[in-house]
Amino acid sequence: MSPSVRIMAFDADDTLWHNEHYFLETEQRFCALLEDYLPHHTVSRELLQTEIKNIELYGYGIKAFMLSMIETAIRITDGNVRPSTLETIIGYGKELLNKPVVLMDGVEHVLQSLKGKYRLVLATKGDLLDQERKLIKSGLTSYFHHIEIMSEKKEGDFQKLIRHLDIQPSEFAMVGNSLKSDILPVLNLGGHGFHIPYHITWAADKIDTTVDHPQFKQLQSIGELVHHV
Amino acid sequence: MSPSVRIMAFDADDTLWHNEHYFLETEQRFCALLEDYLPHHTVSRELLQTEIKNIELYGYGIKAFMLSMIETAIRITDGNVRPSTLETIIGYGKELLNKPVVLMDGVEHVLQSLKGKYRLVLATKGDLLDQERKLIKSGLTSYFHHIEIMSEKKEGDFQKLIRHLDIQPSEFAMVGNSLKSDILPVLNLGGHGFHIPYHITWAADKIDTTVDHPQFKQLQSIGELVHHV
Repeated sequence: MSPSVRIMAFDADDTLWHNEHYFLETEQRFCALLEDYLPHHTVSRELLQTEIKNIELYGYGIKAFMLSMIETAIRITDGNVRPSTLETIIGYGKELLNKPVVLMDGVEHVLQSLKGKYRLVLATKGDLLDQERKLIKSGLTSYFHHIEIMSEKKEGDFQKLIRHLDIQPSEFAMVGNSLKSDILPVLNLGGHGFHIPYHITWAADKIDTTVDHPQFKQLQSIGELVHHV
Repeated sequence: MSPSVRIMAFDADDTLWHNEHYFLETEQRFCALLEDYLPHHTVSRELLQTEIKNIELYGYGIKAFMLSMIETAIRITDGNVRPSTLETIIGYGKELLNKPVVLMDGVEHVLQSLKGKYRLVLATKGDLLDQERKLIKSGLTSYFHHIEIMSEKKEGDFQKLIRHLDIQPSEFAMVGNSLKSDILPVLNLGGHGFHIPYHITWAADKIDTTVDHPQFKQLQSIGELVHHV
């Protein structure tokens, strides 16, 4: 990697620890709960539409997901869903908020190796409290010089973060599983990107593109990071 | 005020702009919606209990409030609430997220007067996206050197903020409407506190105490701040 890089920033969900499979599992339970009304894939599609429509107002995270599940259940049953079913959905959301944090293989080794060479930053989007709670559960807090929980991960948001860290974009590298949210905005600003795909990507975060850029590296796992820095 | 103060930090909701009356208005509409089941004051008490029970899991903000209203409506009707009523509650929450921001009298004048003399910080708790959106709507962003949206406002949270700002507690003053969340933790750390009560305080933020402390000032309105600094 370019010797100019001083800060390595990491996405959290599905980069440092497993996350999306918990959402997927909850979505499957949600669809099963409503299968008397509509087939599984239709419920799933309706939920995604509700989530996307609500992002601007609610932002990301589990509470937004819970509210979108409730709204979808009422809509697709034409208001005939049983309140006890909605209570079950709230219970699913609370379970999701209490899930354990399971680290990706090799994460601690990587952070340990990089810590002396770079300032490490955590840059994640989602519910403030939920992200903080997951970080504490992860046991990784002490590796990070700075923690940024962002409402969005667009170019302007990374620009603000880079300015706040008092560095140039070329001194900033981002490591994450989402090309759309972690990599492309940072490359566009003049920073560096390491993409590590996760085996599940939320439909709203998927983009169909390949990246060919001198400051971009595609990795298969976070463990590979130590060979590139 | 002590000449040592370098940073003036402001709470946002009910300090810089009106907020709690929107929640109160929504709560009243919520109680009216359920008056066939229980009297107004009982619904209100049940909602508060749900909110307090959920704070640890959900944190503060409108999405948490929405989820607690839905949960309360299902519980107090023994699961007999109509789904269309829950849809109405979701609608109330969305309206709340879209409310205009109305500044307290004199806020801009105060921030303008203080800006050259101190570094100004915004320190607020709540939903990340919602607080950011209100700040943008307020038009006050450019007055602030730093914006901190916190999941809690306890001593440890202010300690982290003060450390992040790279100052001593004695150089930090907090201005806010909540003795419990804005003033007492900061005084305990060795900082300064300016309390400006708002005419409505959320029940969970109320404490019954009087403060007598050399680094504490009680004001009647934010406009008075200019006479004390």
